[in-house]
Amino acid sequence: MSTIDTSPSSNGHVPQAWSQSWTHLSIDRRSPSYCRVTFEHPPINTITATTVTELAELVGLIEQDSDLNVVVFDSANPDFYLAHYDTEHDPARTAALPPGPTGMHAWPDLLVRLSRAPAVSIASIRGCVRGAGSEFVLACDLRFASRENALLGQFEVATGVVPGGGPTARLPRLVGRGRALEILLVADDLDGPRAAQYGYVNRAIADDQLDDEVDQMAWRLARFDHDAIARTKLHVDRVSLPADAEFPPVLADFFQMLGLPRQQERFARLEALGLNMDSDLERRLGQRVVEALPDA
Amino acid sequence: MSTIDTSPSSNGHVPQAWSQSWTHLSIDRRSPSYCRVTFEHPPINTITATTVTELAELVGLIEQDSDLNVVVFDSANPDFYLAHYDTEHDPARTAALPPGPTGMHAWPDLLVRLSRAPAVSIASIRGCVRGAGSEFVLACDLRFASRENALLGQFEVATGVVPGGGPTARLPRLVGRGRALEILLVADDLDGPRAAQYGYVNRAIADDQLDDEVDQMAWRLARFDHDAIARTKLHVDRVSLPADAEFPPVLADFFQMLGLPRQQERFARLEALGLNMDSDLERRLGQRVVEALPDA
Amino acid sequence: MSTIDTSPSSNGHVPQAWSQSWTHLSIDRRSPSYCRVTFEHPPINTITATTVTELAELVGLIEQDSDLNVVVFDSANPDFYLAHYDTEHDPARTAALPPGPTGMHAWPDLLVRLSRAPAVSIASIRGCVRGAGSEFVLACDLRFASRENALLGQFEVATGVVPGGGPTARLPRLVGRGRALEILLVADDLDGPRAAQYGYVNRAIADDQLDDEVDQMAWRLARFDHDAIARTKLHVDRVSLPADAEFPPVLADFFQMLGLPRQQERFARLEALGLNMDSDLERRLGQRVVEALPDA
Repeated sequence: MSTIDTSPSSNGHVPQAWSQSWTHLSIDRRSPSYCRVTFEHPPINTITATTVTELAELVGLIEQDSDLNVVVFDSANPDFYLAHYDTEHDPARTAALPPGPTGMHAWPDLLVRLSRAPAVSIASIRGCVRGAGSEFVLACDLRFASRENALLGQFEVATGVVPGGGPTARLPRLVGRGRALEILLVADDLDGPRAAQYGYVNRAIADDQLDDEVDQMAWRLARFDHDAIARTKLHVDRVSLPADAEFPPVLADFFQMLGLPRQQERFARLEALGLNMDSDLERRLGQRVVEALPDA
Repeated sequence: MSTIDTSPSSNGHVPQAWSQSWTHLSIDRRSPSYCRVTFEHPPINTITATTVTELAELVGLIEQDSDLNVVVFDSANPDFYLAHYDTEHDPARTAALPPGPTGMHAWPDLLVRLSRAPAVSIASIRGCVRGAGSEFVLACDLRFASRENALLGQFEVATGVVPGGGPTARLPRLVGRGRALEILLVADDLDGPRAAQYGYVNRAIADDQLDDEVDQMAWRLARFDHDAIARTKLHVDRVSLPADAEFPPVLADFFQMLGLPRQQERFARLEALGLNMDSDLERRLGQRVVEALPDA
Repeated sequence: MSTIDTSPSSNGHVPQAWSQSWTHLSIDRRSPSYCRVTFEHPPINTITATTVTELAELVGLIEQDSDLNVVVFDSANPDFYLAHYDTEHDPARTAALPPGPTGMHAWPDLLVRLSRAPAVSIASIRGCVRGAGSEFVLACDLRFASRENALLGQFEVATGVVPGGGPTARLPRLVGRGRALEILLVADDLDGPRAAQYGYVNRAIADDQLDDEVDQMAWRLARFDHDAIARTKLHVDRVSLPADAEFPPVLADFFQMLGLPRQQERFARLEALGLNMDSDLERRLGQRVVEALPDA
């Protein structure tokens, strides 16, 4: 018997605004206080301008929902959690996304608002999560990774750009300067146990236990007093979140470097090798990303 | 032969002020530079207004003792280190405790003064330590936990209040935001190995080695130059301690939430289940605290 | 076949200024973007005023070399990485070293400049590294230690002085306050696995894999875009490096305490036991340093 079997029915729990038709994710409101969001953007859950727009909308709903205690983010694809960003050959479209309520670009805006939301956000990670996908899980409150089937990484430096969506601010505070610099500069994949050893995730959990353990944790949080959660988060936020001002200069660097001619060539080479597709390159991206590079 | 047998006699080492009769603790001044404080408040070492008053006095003695290099805090009860706070049905008495030298309420005041004291404070943790008990060990300089017999936690959010004595400020700096939020919001127990993995304690030590290993460390520190310890601590304090101003707003939130009618009902339900007694509830509090909650 | 065998020849890669004759180190410029620095100051790689002068010069070369992506620091002596500082009975010579470009004393000056340099610095640690040696590796960006053959420590407090070259500022941010205070105040050695558990090093690597694994990582970094590395480091530096102002007061404390008569007696006792020589004392310094102390 799984905890899911014993959970209250989700019928009738979903407020109207949540019931819209989503393109890159699906929502299961298991109770007024517990919501499950599943990434579902075949073939490998890349993040595009559409994903950003939908996530920004979702975070707005989370912020305003005073019944909601906990949101679990998982993936419908066991091999990919959130692959990374895909500009769809139109970086200008991403750059031109309207700023959010904080005044920042939509991507860092939605990430900082998710971190500050009164509900607890949990990333339940199975499969590959890199680049902007890693930036998303770093903005979640808690992170749990499959012990046997998870690869996390910030591969941006290996492609010639800075990681622009916040990991330069978040990782040093989470794992210390030395390990943050290794993750960001060596830009290789970390499996679940290594990610847990470094503090990149809270813990690695045996793959066949991950769903149940996270679900039980979520149901526990779902029963707690909303105000006790919200106020405790607020006090922790004050001492542990980066200042908003730390984000825009890094994103500006990212867009500037992304616009360089050499960069377009590099991404063209990576696409020829299988980037943005369900490919061996994507499954071993940390290792294979160097194939698009010149020799030393 | 235990290290205790070979230690210098404590006769004559105890300055007059230390020799008073303590109610909830006992003091063994093993040498001018090494003091051992044992919590002894049956049945489960709850912290009450009396404990706070005695600890505040003790910290004052530690602060002024220029012979003292190290203070080890342990428990006379192998199953409970410091259970948690007990208002003894009179929260107003605790709220009305006189402010300490920092101007803060007696509890955060004594904790920040212990952290800044020139002597090294070591929590040698065997048994359960939760809530205010966890706040105490977080204010100590070093923390070692029995590998087989220790449970640490901040269970406050599960009862509907914020943890008011500092862990929202101390834990994120010690274990990172993600693990701090898990400890504070999921509000479950961590055993020794998990606490060590997260950095909540320095290390977990096999139960039958804990006393000897901590004692040897204390005797080592006892031989060091007092000024070298005090000045090094001061430099570390400057970059690692929360600002005093971070504490009062959280404690104010705690007292405000504690005063809500729903809160008194919750604690009444927990008392009916065995709170503040040597009970199964207390031994498995992280797990069982939800029994006083409504369904999700 | 080792990775070293397959590396490009280093002939012709070394800019003129790098080719000078070094006294306490040797330089192998494996490619324009990858440099290996090997400490070689028999018998135990102590750091003296000469080492400081050479390291300051080397850091200046690293700072100005826009081809260089990565510098690996290792040791020619498998038993000692960098033993610790040796004043050569003339503390005044060290105190009088000219300030560097930051305005600080040459030692903290070169350490903060190494941390901010655009190239990635990697400490590949085999053997003993204590005191100022530990301060050096803490200023490197990444640290990897031999699992079977590494001992790290800050033994200064055990000799009666504060650790003056930055670990009071760097360690709490890297390993948290509790473990930093243990390393600094208990002042004992940590082996590779313990250092990795605490976050003092990124990882412990099996001794027979250490050279190859670090070399492969360096060749990977050598192929990356210099500007992507440099800008990412800059953003991480902004949120993870101590302020320069934190260093001078601690160093002043160190020199003041070093000048006390009792201190010269202590170092004389340690020298009689084998300090600064290839001795059992040096190999077990964390444990044996107390032999120069009075009883508790």
